Amino acid sequence: MADDHAREEIRRFLREDIGTGDITTELIREVENIRGQVIAREGFVVSGIREAGMVFEETGASWSSEYNPGDRVREGTVLMEVEGPVYPVLTGERLALNILMRMSGIATAVNRLSELAGGAKVAATRKTTPGFRYFEKKAVYQGGGDPHRYGLDDMFLIKDNHIAIAGMEAVVVRARKASLYRKIEVEVSTKDDAIKAAKLGVDMIMLDNMSPSEVRESYNMVKEIDKNILIEVSGNIDETNIAEYAPYADIISCGYITHSAPSVDLSMEIIYGE
Amino acid sequence: MADDHAREEIRRFLREDIGTGDITTELIREVENIRGQVIAREGFVVSGIREAGMVFEETGASWSSEYNPGDRVREGTVLMEVEGPVYPVLTGERLALNILMRMSGIATAVNRLSELAGGAKVAATRKTTPGFRYFEKKAVYQGGGDPHRYGLDDMFLIKDNHIAIAGMEAVVVRARKASLYRKIEVEVSTKDDAIKAAKLGVDMIMLDNMSPSEVRESYNMVKEIDKNILIEVSGNIDETNIAEYAPYADIISCGYITHSAPSVDLSMEIIYGE
Amino acid sequence: MADDHAREEIRRFLREDIGTGDITTELIREVENIRGQVIAREGFVVSGIREAGMVFEETGASWSSEYNPGDRVREGTVLMEVEGPVYPVLTGERLALNILMRMSGIATAVNRLSELAGGAKVAATRKTTPGFRYFEKKAVYQGGGDPHRYGLDDMFLIKDNHIAIAGMEAVVVRARKASLYRKIEVEVSTKDDAIKAAKLGVDMIMLDNMSPSEVRESYNMVKEIDKNILIEVSGNIDETNIAEYAPYADIISCGYITHSAPSVDLSMEIIYGE
Amino acid sequence: MADDHAREEIRRFLREDIGTGDITTELIREVENIRGQVIAREGFVVSGIREAGMVFEETGASWSSEYNPGDRVREGTVLMEVEGPVYPVLTGERLALNILMRMSGIATAVNRLSELAGGAKVAATRKTTPGFRYFEKKAVYQGGGDPHRYGLDDMFLIKDNHIAIAGMEAVVVRARKASLYRKIEVEVSTKDDAIKAAKLGVDMIMLDNMSPSEVRESYNMVKEIDKNILIEVSGNIDETNIAEYAPYADIISCGYITHSAPSVDLSMEIIYGE
Amino acid sequence: MADDHAREEIRRFLREDIGTGDITTELIREVENIRGQVIAREGFVVSGIREAGMVFEETGASWSSEYNPGDRVREGTVLMEVEGPVYPVLTGERLALNILMRMSGIATAVNRLSELAGGAKVAATRKTTPGFRYFEKKAVYQGGGDPHRYGLDDMFLIKDNHIAIAGMEAVVVRARKASLYRKIEVEVSTKDDAIKAAKLGVDMIMLDNMSPSEVRESYNMVKEIDKNILIEVSGNIDETNIAEYAPYADIISCGYITHSAPSVDLSMEIIYGE
Amino acid sequence: MADDHAREEIRRFLREDIGTGDITTELIREVENIRGQVIAREGFVVSGIREAGMVFEETGASWSSEYNPGDRVREGTVLMEVEGPVYPVLTGERLALNILMRMSGIATAVNRLSELAGGAKVAATRKTTPGFRYFEKKAVYQGGGDPHRYGLDDMFLIKDNHIAIAGMEAVVVRARKASLYRKIEVEVSTKDDAIKAAKLGVDMIMLDNMSPSEVRESYNMVKEIDKNILIEVSGNIDETNIAEYAPYADIISCGYITHSAPSVDLSMEIIYGE
Repeated sequence: MADDHAREEIRRFLREDIGTGDITTELIREVENIRGQVIAREGFVVSGIREAGMVFEETGASWSSEYNPGDRVREGTVLMEVEGPVYPVLTGERLALNILMRMSGIATAVNRLSELAGGAKVAATRKTTPGFRYFEKKAVYQGGGDPHRYGLDDMFLIKDNHIAIAGMEAVVVRARKASLYRKIEVEVSTKDDAIKAAKLGVDMIMLDNMSPSEVRESYNMVKEIDKNILIEVSGNIDETNIAEYAPYADIISCGYITHSAPSVDLSMEIIYGE
Repeated sequence: MADDHAREEIRRFLREDIGTGDITTELIREVENIRGQVIAREGFVVSGIREAGMVFEETGASWSSEYNPGDRVREGTVLMEVEGPVYPVLTGERLALNILMRMSGIATAVNRLSELAGGAKVAATRKTTPGFRYFEKKAVYQGGGDPHRYGLDDMFLIKDNHIAIAGMEAVVVRARKASLYRKIEVEVSTKDDAIKAAKLGVDMIMLDNMSPSEVRESYNMVKEIDKNILIEVSGNIDETNIAEYAPYADIISCGYITHSAPSVDLSMEIIYGE
Repeated sequence: MADDHAREEIRRFLREDIGTGDITTELIREVENIRGQVIAREGFVVSGIREAGMVFEETGASWSSEYNPGDRVREGTVLMEVEGPVYPVLTGERLALNILMRMSGIATAVNRLSELAGGAKVAATRKTTPGFRYFEKKAVYQGGGDPHRYGLDDMFLIKDNHIAIAGMEAVVVRARKASLYRKIEVEVSTKDDAIKAAKLGVDMIMLDNMSPSEVRESYNMVKEIDKNILIEVSGNIDETNIAEYAPYADIISCGYITHSAPSVDLSMEIIYGE
Repeated sequence: MADDHAREEIRRFLREDIGTGDITTELIREVENIRGQVIAREGFVVSGIREAGMVFEETGASWSSEYNPGDRVREGTVLMEVEGPVYPVLTGERLALNILMRMSGIATAVNRLSELAGGAKVAATRKTTPGFRYFEKKAVYQGGGDPHRYGLDDMFLIKDNHIAIAGMEAVVVRARKASLYRKIEVEVSTKDDAIKAAKLGVDMIMLDNMSPSEVRESYNMVKEIDKNILIEVSGNIDETNIAEYAPYADIISCGYITHSAPSVDLSMEIIYGE
Repeated sequence: MADDHAREEIRRFLREDIGTGDITTELIREVENIRGQVIAREGFVVSGIREAGMVFEETGASWSSEYNPGDRVREGTVLMEVEGPVYPVLTGERLALNILMRMSGIATAVNRLSELAGGAKVAATRKTTPGFRYFEKKAVYQGGGDPHRYGLDDMFLIKDNHIAIAGMEAVVVRARKASLYRKIEVEVSTKDDAIKAAKLGVDMIMLDNMSPSEVRESYNMVKEIDKNILIEVSGNIDETNIAEYAPYADIISCGYITHSAPSVDLSMEIIYGE
Repeated sequence: MADDHAREEIRRFLREDIGTGDITTELIREVENIRGQVIAREGFVVSGIREAGMVFEETGASWSSEYNPGDRVREGTVLMEVEGPVYPVLTGERLALNILMRMSGIATAVNRLSELAGGAKVAATRKTTPGFRYFEKKAVYQGGGDPHRYGLDDMFLIKDNHIAIAGMEAVVVRARKASLYRKIEVEVSTKDDAIKAAKLGVDMIMLDNMSPSEVRESYNMVKEIDKNILIEVSGNIDETNIAEYAPYADIISCGYITHSAPSVDLSMEIIYGE
């Protein structure tokens, strides 16, 4: 996950927020030097430090931080320090905070679920905010989860509709012929289909919207056929029920961590003229 | 809010999700015609219909809907119908749902707060998801709220830091000299500063992080100076306390509606071969 | 008005002028160092120094100037000095001069009108050169005028056609409902309509194509209703008649300053091998 | 000069003017159909009809015109008719008029100079408005002039600075070696240099800032050396002195036609509800 | 592989070739209708028909073809027919032919190698022409080969340098932790390393620059450890030696098919005025 | 040929190859410093050094080289050295090599043909790889050839189809009227047409697909009419027959040098931890 891609997105985010210019801060542009501290207003798992820093690199301020992605911080922690002329510091403030508060919100949710999931990996889905996926996927990774596929060109994920239209076997065969370099995963919602997929030799099977007991049975039967096939469990899983699924899953994917995890509370204090 | 801007953003969102192509659906590209129904899995206030429709216009499917922004729908409602070859329908599905579920989530939150706010208008802030602001601001509007300024080039919003650095009066005077066509709002956190701002003849005053009683007093004193000055109240206001502030506010702005409102539950059912 | 927006536009202007490369200067690319002086060939009000400087920053030369936007310079003044390898100096020359000569032409015209306008502010319109608006608006500002709205998404300007189609009151009511953060201006061409608009409580009224006496009467009656409403006068106003309108106007807007003000005369002298 | 390039530029111009949307016309978006007529408010030579039409094609209105580039129209002429829903018609209006008024202004100036220039061709320079060059060059062509080179990658134009740095002969030799497919023009300011250039076998010679008599002598001597060498005369030539230079010039280039020609007067009348 | 991505690239290719316009064809733009036939000047395997067709869709001509990707055609075959006004047909001609001649050249080379490779799949590498990779990878696919990974974000390909720097096991472990959704391939150049990789449970092993006998031994030993591990053989393999490697390879990757396969011979005949 | 254009293209090439990030090298990102040497695996004429260097400038590594475009190097030569953190070195490697191997392949082919062509210049055509033309044209130039026109907006090249549709004389007359600044070349395939073109006073004549004896006769007759008219010979000319055409040609253009010249063999050796 190269800096470059993040940087290009961040330039676009700055254009979105600044447009032709910050007309209010322009009024005091002559001010040479201010400092800012980003402060955690609650405890959480940190994500997005480098990305927030890039915002200030782009506007023209300098920054530093003692924290790394995945660190857990307490309320009151000074997460990041910023320094520079007033224009770059104030025009970057909101975007940097928006990035930090959402990425950390996601990392915190992933972290909490992961603790409940035992050895199973918590994974994201494609239920991300349009235009911000790269950062949401990265927050999942920094929170200890698996980003799953980035988009539709990444891997073969044969879903219910593909199967309904063309049949599971036909699609699996075509996928393998199209490229040997991408994994093939099949989404199923019954034990029988899980077994069918396992016999076709796919790499991964997604058990969608199945009860814990169905998942357990499917898991055991698939692993018996081939222990290398990975089992992903999916469908309205959250803190309340993840522990029931976890023992019979390699991966538990969860839309809510990207589409509904609340942002964490952060603010930036400006220090001037000391 | 022109279609064109939305359409350009949607093209970028499609590139984010599809990359060089949907390699799974490509395997069954020969399928000529399928239909899909977007179904509400809970009750909510609708937002983003036209924007979701544009997704399918861009991929090459046709769509229709009987619902308008701001409509309240019940669980089970068929919100939208889509029709076309398999490739455009399936490659547009996830993005269209992502747009609908987030925009409707925001509209629903705005609607709920507005009911509690009586005559006061609920407004958004700049605490939006980077890359998706246009749609979040639009969802606020479609839910009955005020989108507030779009970005830093829109209006003069003189915040605590601007005042700390250069003084309230100086900045107000410079703003007025810079352009007479944009409103001037001043952020204050004390009654005295509210009075000071009112005497400077600004258009709007934001009372930030003040108690309900301070807000009431400030409101009354400002309105006495000039009844046309609008009072915006801000700072951790939510469903639990909005009713206390509402009688003494023209506008109540609220970061949570864009940064933490949960998405609504939606899915698309595919109908094929009937 | 952030540097970034200007810089991005300037990169596009360079691509427009240079294409795949300056094939003539390429022939002498080995030359390491030359100096250039931008010289005023007539007296004028300066605008665009920083923007012209950015051109050389982008091509890779360094620059300096002792002058600020709004300064009045005499014929023969060395406005700017440039230094660097031959390629960046010569490939930036034409664009830098084009920017300076047009922006200074506009600033000079605004300055002349402003002197005749007494206390009234001279403002631009949207009659700008497509692709160059940002710089033309900035030149108006640097010449002492008001840039007016930047585009159609800035403020509500309810014009004759909007009124003819939907009625003044209906549109004003809808505008206020759509957002409280943007000013509402109504364009009128009769005294009665000016009074009607004033009674609707709009922020600004544009008196379009009215005689000086009609303007005087309208101005007085509107100010009697609400002294805070700003009066903009518009319609073929130039140096010959601006003094007649000025006493009864807060703002006088003028298309000619951006669409027909002549460029000022400038050239760059190259010094090499001294 | 392909439509595509113009169309792409026009899309950018629309973004410049409309931003995220025309918030005023949005208020009356439900209006289905209006008509507009673009009317000449003075006599002039027409340019930019197809380009103005493209604006409406992009916003979603239809248009027609009975006039072609280069036609001379009288005051009161209906230059163009537009029809469509209110949003596309009104949001395209200003840009379409801005294009027409500037392109026609240039075409009119070129036409006037061409009449005075007899057989000599009037040509543009690179003194164009940044971001709008393509349209200004096209207006020169439609007014009967020669657009000259589009940018620095088009042809070899060896100017005073290139010669001062590396010597005329050396640069001409290198140019010929670099590519045989582009013309070589040399800028000179003395008769002797004109002769020198002619002997080097260049394609064109630009006589810069020379008196009419110097031009006459240089012209005659160059043509004697090679009658196929084209003579371009340049340097503060305008209506008052062009006739003196014309008999001894193949081409007369003129910065003023693009940087200072006044726009023509045009307006759009809206017809609604008849 | 979605049309959209190809279409966007094709628009850029057209800008590269046409610039501001085809100035020669512009001279005869009034011609309403011509037809063109793309004719094979030698026998080959077809690739790029739809992509070449898109060129004409973008310029504004219509096209048809009776051939599909992968078809083998003989000298003299009319591969494609085009029809439309002169401008779109002639401005699209060269790009359409450039696409067809290179994609078909690649498909033909892949086809020839595949015949020699028996059951082993011929695959591309990242040794593609910058800016044209998407089309070269697609040509490999249409010629019956495997496109391999598209870029560096697709899959884990742990190469000699990664191993030299951090050790094979460490990198494999980290890769698996980073994401379970992408295949892990390890590049090795000795039998021992192949065995080591197989024991780490990777998905694929690339045997690089090994002799046929080393490949045979490595293949057999890896398959004994896990028959599902795919063996890719690589390193200066061409028509002369592919048959020696093929029996002990699942995939044979080959840089030459994209970086050095000669283009096929094609031309377009224009039919006008019949 | 400005750096800027090349740099912009190179950024796009990097996006093509890296996408959202090099997920393998990301796993060892902590490694601070490695060195790489680009080594020639055969003898060839060098092209693309600066362009390959720009790749590393963009990813964030430093580079140096002792070689210049046009130099001939032997097998084993260290063409370039690179140094930096592991991420920028490894993510730039493939693109830098792809550029060098193709540009040097072209330069080598041009060089070989030029030696056989005596005094005649070898020129490229528009048969280039879409998206990579700028670099291929530059490689032709660095190999000692003439890049010919860059695209359709450069010069007038009146081809068989233009003539068939509108007649040679008509098109030549219109071209001259459209602009005097671009050369006019006419493509002919008979001696009579060559003479006709010469009499029309065009700048260049392309003799297409003619036998050596027809070329000789045409050349002599054209030069008799005007010795300044340049003769370009074209049509399946390669190493086997170029010497027959060369004495009667000023330029010999050749599609094969860009569409089918094989890449040269290069690799990058990484040195780490010494």
